Parts: sequence; structure tokens; C-alpha cells
Amino acid sequence: MKNEHRVKFINSLSGFKSANLVGTSSRRNDDNLAIISSVIHLGANPPLIGFIMRPHSVDRHTLENIEETGVYTINHVHSGIVKAAHQTSARYHREQSEFEQTGLTAERFDGFHAPYVAESKLSIGLKLVEVASITHNGTEFVIGEIQWVRTDEAAVQNDGFIDLEALGTVAVSGLDRYHTTKGLCRLSYAKPDKEPTEIPLAGPDSDD
Amino acid sequence: MKNEHRVKFINSLSGFKSANLVGTSSRRNDDNLAIISSVIHLGANPPLIGFIMRPHSVDRHTLENIEETGVYTINHVHSGIVKAAHQTSARYHREQSEFEQTGLTAERFDGFHAPYVAESKLSIGLKLVEVASITHNGTEFVIGEIQWVRTDEAAVQNDGFIDLEALGTVAVSGLDRYHTTKGLCRLSYAKPDKEPTEIPLAGPDSDD
Repeated sequence: MKNEHRVKFINSLSGFKSANLVGTSSRRNDDNLAIISSVIHLGANPPLIGFIMRPHSVDRHTLENIEETGVYTINHVHSGIVKAAHQTSARYHREQSEFEQTGLTAERFDGFHAPYVAESKLSIGLKLVEVASITHNGTEFVIGEIQWVRTDEAAVQNDGFIDLEALGTVAVSGLDRYHTTKGLCRLSYAKPDKEPTEIPLAGPDSDD
Repeated sequence: MKNEHRVKFINSLSGFKSANLVGTSSRRNDDNLAIISSVIHLGANPPLIGFIMRPHSVDRHTLENIEETGVYTINHVHSGIVKAAHQTSARYHREQSEFEQTGLTAERFDGFHAPYVAESKLSIGLKLVEVASITHNGTEFVIGEIQWVRTDEAAVQNDGFIDLEALGTVAVSGLDRYHTTKGLCRLSYAKPDKEPTEIPLAGPDSDD
């Protein structure tokens, strides 16, 4: 396999990935926005989210800004902003803001240095807590604690679960393919002596 | 928010997640199978994949087996095996194999200790290379190097990209919702002076 084909093949193997925009701003208030597909849930108590930063990544400005200011935002990509989100991965100069270049809007909450994406339907404000180095290939695992969440309350179900389809959130496969989704089922908490049953989107009927 | 609602809310925030089964076997050949939603791509050269193991996880046997034998498999979950895959998260005793309990079939390649899931349409054999500790919440990031891939060649496109939809691979949101996907677009490599264009599923027409 040619090297560039191999890269696309390996990138497809992990399965579907999340599509998020990381919003940061330098100490001098240069805003930066970068699409990433490696955001993962790390734990609910404390509420932690991680993502991978590649060593020779196009967008080292993101990590520099996070380390300078200690804060960043993660913003879901929905189908209406897929092209603009993808375009943030172009190799712009540091002084060019990807917000301006792609037409996305930087907004901020008072007292929180990093901008969120106004067009996104779910934004998370995070405070950096740890950068874990993966020695084997020089990547860095950037871990943040959730400070605030901005989303449409109508998408939040009775039991806390968020209906990502109601938000239009997309998934990514490989380097460059975007997907909408269709709910197949929610399944009950698994127990050894019982088959899992489908539960309604709004959550289980009882505390069972 | 009640604590269990908060857990479901926080689990939904990262966006769509991959749905995979990790297959392992102890030195005494007790097979184990566990569903995980934290598998992520880490790099193509060397080909590395990571996943998160929670500290008080139901399934510590997975990590014990990986550390004992050095190998494991990652198997995509497709819509036909969603219920069986979900059921592997039940708290079985160590001597009970989740393969037997859920009706999934353990197969192995000669000389590779860990079983793969025969019903899965994409399986990856991995060798453990690193367990990075996330000090902030006691989770562990398990990193493996790809040794082999077993899949349907018809799903592999001209440029190496794998059509996960052709394999029926599902995505997960929150703790318990499964989704099929629908391709929205593949987008060209982003350049500062150019809008991204849609490329065919089989890959770009030229090397541009």
C-alpha cells in the first residue's frame, strides 16, 4: 500500500469519531479554531474530556494557546457547518483567525478567555488539567475539566442523556468523511441474567 | 441534577463514539470480551490505537489479560450484533466467557493468543506498547500497535479509506444509545486559498 493510502486506511480503523471544533485564544487575543476527531469522554466525577494533539500537527497554535491561557472550548460540528469546520484544518498563518477565514462566529462568556463557536449547538468550556505525553509516538493527550456547557435544553432528556441527533451533531470516519446518524436503539443497563431491552429515548421508565 | 443524570449528561458531551469489542484471553486461556466506546486513532506511522480503561470498570479482566499476554483484538460492532455487544458489559464472573454468555463466536489466528469476534466485519490484532496513566482521575490509556487487520476488501476504497457504512459499523452516544450512519460527504484536503470540495467515496480523482 502507498504511504498516503496506508494513512487513510489506518485512520479508518478505530470506527466512528466525534467531530468537534476546539476554540482558543492566545494571551494577545489571537483567536484560533481547529477541527479535531479525537475528543473522548474520560470521566464524570470530576467531569473530564480528553483529546489527542499530534506532534507535527498543522495546528500547534491550539496547544500553545491552551498552555498560555489554561482554557479552551469544544464545540460540536453539525451538518450545517461541516464545510466551514473542515476548512479550519487548512494551514493558515498564526495571525489569521480561522473564525474569520471560514465565516464562523467567535463569541465568549464574560471572564472566560476562550471563544466558543456561536453556530455550534453544543459548546463546552474547559480548564486544562493535564497534558499526558504518549512516549511511543510523541503525541500528547490534552485533558480538561468541564467548566460550563451551552446547549439547547430541548435536546436534554429526562435522565440527563443528550439527544445528539436533535442537535444535528455529525460523526467522522477516516480523515475526511462526515456522517449524519439515525438512532437504532437505547439499551437497558446490562445484567448477567437478563437480555438487554430497548428503552425510550427519554430514558428508562423507572429507576430499574 | 441527580448524580446518575449527571453521569449520562457528561457521557453525552464528547459527541459520537466508536463501538468496539475488545477480545482478550488470560494466560490460562479464559476468553474475555468487553464493549468499549473510547477507541481512538493515535497515529499511522507506527500504526497505533488507544482506548481508555476506567479505574473501577466492570471489566478489569480485559486489562489484566492484556498485561499478562501482551495482545488483544478490537472488533467493530455492527447493527446485527448490537444487543450481544451491549450485553458483554454485564458483570459476569471471571470464569464466565462473555463469548459464551452472549452467543458471539471466538476465533483466532494461529500464533495470536487473543480471540477475535467471528461475527464482526472488521477486526484488528494489536500488541500492547504502552499504558499511560492519567493521574487526574486514575484512568489508564492503553496503547497498542496494529499487527493485522481482518475485513471485507470490498469496503476498502481505492485510496485506502474504509467505507464503514458498507460494514454496518455503528456509533454510540452517551452510555447506551446506538446509531447507524448516513454518509453526508467526503471533503478534499483543506487549503487556505480554496473552499473544500466534495470528493467521491472511492477517493479523490487525482493526487491533488
